[in-house]
Amino acid sequence: MVIRGTTRLVFLIGDPVAHTKGYAAYATALHDADIDAAYLPMHVPGGRLQDVLAGLQWAQNVAGVVATVPHKLDAFRLGIPDEAARRAGSANVMRRSGTGQWECTQVDGAGFLAAVDAAEIVLTGHHVQVLGAGGAGRAVAMSIAERGPATLSIHDPDLGKQGDLVAAVAQEFPGTNVRGDLGRSEVLINCSNIGMGSDDRLPLPLDLIPIGGACYDVINRADTMLLRMAEQRHCKRDHGRSMMLAEVPLIVDYLFSGR
Amino acid sequence: MVIRGTTRLVFLIGDPVAHTKGYAAYATALHDADIDAAYLPMHVPGGRLQDVLAGLQWAQNVAGVVATVPHKLDAFRLGIPDEAARRAGSANVMRRSGTGQWECTQVDGAGFLAAVDAAEIVLTGHHVQVLGAGGAGRAVAMSIAERGPATLSIHDPDLGKQGDLVAAVAQEFPGTNVRGDLGRSEVLINCSNIGMGSDDRLPLPLDLIPIGGACYDVINRADTMLLRMAEQRHCKRDHGRSMMLAEVPLIVDYLFSGR
Repeated sequence: MVIRGTTRLVFLIGDPVAHTKGYAAYATALHDADIDAAYLPMHVPGGRLQDVLAGLQWAQNVAGVVATVPHKLDAFRLGIPDEAARRAGSANVMRRSGTGQWECTQVDGAGFLAAVDAAEIVLTGHHVQVLGAGGAGRAVAMSIAERGPATLSIHDPDLGKQGDLVAAVAQEFPGTNVRGDLGRSEVLINCSNIGMGSDDRLPLPLDLIPIGGACYDVINRADTMLLRMAEQRHCKRDHGRSMMLAEVPLIVDYLFSGR
Repeated sequence: MVIRGTTRLVFLIGDPVAHTKGYAAYATALHDADIDAAYLPMHVPGGRLQDVLAGLQWAQNVAGVVATVPHKLDAFRLGIPDEAARRAGSANVMRRSGTGQWECTQVDGAGFLAAVDAAEIVLTGHHVQVLGAGGAGRAVAMSIAERGPATLSIHDPDLGKQGDLVAAVAQEFPGTNVRGDLGRSEVLINCSNIGMGSDDRLPLPLDLIPIGGACYDVINRADTMLLRMAEQRHCKRDHGRSMMLAEVPLIVDYLFSGR
């Protein structure tokens, strides 16, 4: 990457950031689109996005920020949301509007759909189980509903969050057969942090993983317990890296198209 | 340059910044010193450094900022100055202290001395004329006094600024033969913006430029009117590029040594 006095800046704001990936993919995408910009990590503790934005608003060459854990709800609260952000109730990209305010969108849903399409995992007409009704689960569940699954079951150990998301999906997509449930499916989508720890026993009934079905884990790691179990059960499978990469052109477009 | 989640950030904060140079030199210096950091432009209007620092203080991977025009006086005012910054009354580098406050230094003087040494322009024992008693002139005049010139003459069209700088040099370096004056010299140092415009008549008496002497223009351009006149009068000469490059290792050391 070549930095110049004219280079515009995009910050990935999260806590932690040391483990984050995608820098080479952004550098390539920006270079290929002939955009003079750099994508950079910024390590900001939870609750401080507002303070950082108050400073960055004076920096004329900041094109925008990408918000990751734990800032996605604050990004939504601090920006003017578009339809995708409003449905998800969270945001992961912010840019300045023509009048100097922050606008935000949420591309996790669109990135997820692009990733499952590339992996040939079909949602339409199938029984889909989502694990986790947090920020990622909410964006993903909305995008699944958009595709018209036979059923959409959502599970979260926090029954309040589970119920809220089921109700929100039903309201946004009234024709959807959506419910709070945990059971057998054809397509299993993990948006929770199960399988992240060192414990190699999955805290879920094994037969949740559909033999010969499909499994997508939004965690950006190829070796989660869930994916290893899915491999043993002959599922089509993929993980968050493809979703992260699918979001690169969406984010570049949101930040730079027409600007 | 390779950006990673662990990369630390250094911002060159100025207005404008589009014309600024040195990015490749910083990238090389950081790479050679095995420091995982990036040096980046940040375009911030005058008077807004404080707001930007208030945001950046929450960004854990910001190693510091380099302040350029018009922020050098604000950098001094907002940071805890070291000896070089205190003498100059301005600062061009800021870093976080162990207790989270901003500390600042001014390396224009040290960069100037390294640059004139490399160009074999001798200050000690010579008659030196400085043009300009603004921020750059102040840092440069203090560093010339440190070298023990035969005389040090300082000129500024603003007689108040000229008098203030003469008094400050006399106080810091009591043995120095310093005065507010404009006349013939052996070494002419330009710290003003003369020769920057499109007018190709130098607004100065031509015999100010010492035939066979030396001339250093702190402006980072090889083609200023002053340098062209100095060439015709067979002076040793150099310009701000060498000063900017001499500051790179000083700034890297201030920001990263022991951190």
